Amino acid sequence: MRHYGSVIRDEPLPGALTRAEIAETADVVARVLAAGAGEATAAALAIAARGPRWVSIVGRGTSDHAGLYARYLLERLLGIPVALAAPSLTTLYGGGTRWADALVISISQSGAGPDVVEVTEAARAGGATTIAVTNETGSRLAAAAEFVLDVRAGPEHSVAATKTYVGELAALAALGGRLVPGAGLGASLAAVPDAIHAVLAHPGEGIGAAADVVAAGRGTLVAARGIELATALELALKLKEMASLFADGYSGADLLHGPIVLAGPEVPAIVVRQAGAIGAVLDPVIERLAAAGSPVVRILAPDPSAPTAPAIAAAATPGAPRAGAVIDIRLPVAVDELVGPLLHIVPGQLLAVEVAVRRGREPDAPIGLTKVTQTR
Amino acid sequence: MRHYGSVIRDEPLPGALTRAEIAETADVVARVLAAGAGEATAAALAIAARGPRWVSIVGRGTSDHAGLYARYLLERLLGIPVALAAPSLTTLYGGGTRWADALVISISQSGAGPDVVEVTEAARAGGATTIAVTNETGSRLAAAAEFVLDVRAGPEHSVAATKTYVGELAALAALGGRLVPGAGLGASLAAVPDAIHAVLAHPGEGIGAAADVVAAGRGTLVAARGIELATALELALKLKEMASLFADGYSGADLLHGPIVLAGPEVPAIVVRQAGAIGAVLDPVIERLAAAGSPVVRILAPDPSAPTAPAIAAAATPGAPRAGAVIDIRLPVAVDELVGPLLHIVPGQLLAVEVAVRRGREPDAPIGLTKVTQTR
Repeated sequence: MRHYGSVIRDEPLPGALTRAEIAETADVVARVLAAGAGEATAAALAIAARGPRWVSIVGRGTSDHAGLYARYLLERLLGIPVALAAPSLTTLYGGGTRWADALVISISQSGAGPDVVEVTEAARAGGATTIAVTNETGSRLAAAAEFVLDVRAGPEHSVAATKTYVGELAALAALGGRLVPGAGLGASLAAVPDAIHAVLAHPGEGIGAAADVVAAGRGTLVAARGIELATALELALKLKEMASLFADGYSGADLLHGPIVLAGPEVPAIVVRQAGAIGAVLDPVIERLAAAGSPVVRILAPDPSAPTAPAIAAAATPGAPRAGAVIDIRLPVAVDELVGPLLHIVPGQLLAVEVAVRRGREPDAPIGLTKVTQTR
Repeated sequence: MRHYGSVIRDEPLPGALTRAEIAETADVVARVLAAGAGEATAAALAIAARGPRWVSIVGRGTSDHAGLYARYLLERLLGIPVALAAPSLTTLYGGGTRWADALVISISQSGAGPDVVEVTEAARAGGATTIAVTNETGSRLAAAAEFVLDVRAGPEHSVAATKTYVGELAALAALGGRLVPGAGLGASLAAVPDAIHAVLAHPGEGIGAAADVVAAGRGTLVAARGIELATALELALKLKEMASLFADGYSGADLLHGPIVLAGPEVPAIVVRQAGAIGAVLDPVIERLAAAGSPVVRILAPDPSAPTAPAIAAAATPGAPRAGAVIDIRLPVAVDELVGPLLHIVPGQLLAVEVAVRRGREPDAPIGLTKVTQTR
């Protein structure tokens, strides 16, 4: 029996579990930064001593998106090549990769994915420095890697990963901060838990209006640039998993190379618009989307230089049949760019829950998905 | 005025241009293999002399998918890390990547993408060996790189790239064959033009039936494994560009880590099912899709070990509300696995044209797209 808005409620509200787990995110990050400091330092010291010449990152699904964040972060910090591994090269094609000079970072909340474990074992046997980022320190993956960074998220019962994703990002950023202390990442990270708390306390009035629009569409385009590409892909995956909605995440540049053709009144778009010069690169993309008629949701970091919604509509109107509306989810605080993805996915996760509810789905337990996926 | 099936026809049939360009594909590959041999040899000799320690591949859209093919091919052949470049690290974040030991392969049919040119220039200035793969040898990209591999596709007038994509793959495979002569890639490639001719002559009776099913869906899931991942992503992009259909390409493994939730009677799936052990890895994915009710289209390489369509339906039925139908696009010939993507995208491109026509779109000129996309 389910009576919304009534005192009689035998079943929880849809998405109650996911909402509760998202609400723990700030604490997860704080734990990773405090209790996880020793792990990050130990791994960073070993890496510094060995001087790997390249980095390979292994993960599937949500953890692959955490890997995409690490790919931008570590290549920018270290200047050495960082590649997202293609596990099939090891698991299906029988290897051949020369691992000796590599740092291999394997990411899996469960630590149980056979493919991720297999690549990690092959890399370690081949002489790589191996690090597992996982929420299960007793897992096969944790045993396979030389170093373990604990995500410290506690049990995650909802099927779609939320707090464990941000915990993975925090562990990866903490490692990056230890590897290149001069980059100031430690200070940037220290501000993140309070920023997440602020977003959770005031997630932005736009979320409800944005959810109405996204839920009514036949699919959603999600765009970002630079290090926020991980946010776009992860938000798109949450919309798929929780709301069973077609949603594609793109670099704003790749979006213009083809998929922009999908834009139109029936296809809302979500743009993760960070502050500063890289955020500004997205403004022409937003205008293109609006001009094609797509309602545009901006997840908007505080930035005085960002065009206002009416300005976009005015710019987009000429030549367009009807310009899409612009709905802003305004974040109450800003964080430094390299840690932006830890913050900016949170309103996206909350939005996905709301979209799922509007589409009559139970975000906590999508039909056909299980928590641990076994793939090779 | 347009009278289908009539002798009066002042306008061409929809997709006529794209069909004509797809029909040139075998000849494009043959030209790359013959006339392009000297270019590939020259680049390969320089690479062998310099011994790069890693490979970075730069491209957007369709050319990014050609890069994904090269990523699997070259990492498997060479054993050194191969990464898909994140152009924004150079164009927006101001660089920092150490290029000295790198081989950088930049792919662009037009050679005009500012971001691809900028990364190539930065890499060359930083000491990398640079190769441009392009259909325009007079382009900025061709000028920026030390070596040029001409795609030799002739003018491509349809907006969605088809023959130039396969030409890019051919140029990349020819380079791989020169770099590792013992791998037998040269012989594998030599069989490709005839195989493409065979597919074009007998594209498979399933294409019409498959197009009916895909055109009726609310979106399409496209899956492949290993080196065919490029085919899945490129086919999904063609469905988006030509038919304005939501279509997502996945590794079969990543599909199971979340997006499988979209499967159902309204969401057909297309699986690029190559022969052999890697093709067999996809059979459980096909069963999962069919069990969820998705009609499944298999682009099926000749393989006696592939389950028959009735066997899949039988396996998928227990516990399912209604198993999806299985429609096969049977290829008349097989090629070696490492050159499979040159062949397997061709029926996919033909399918995308048919889907677009059924959805009332003009595949030759999707609304809102232009041939050359300028992005940073």
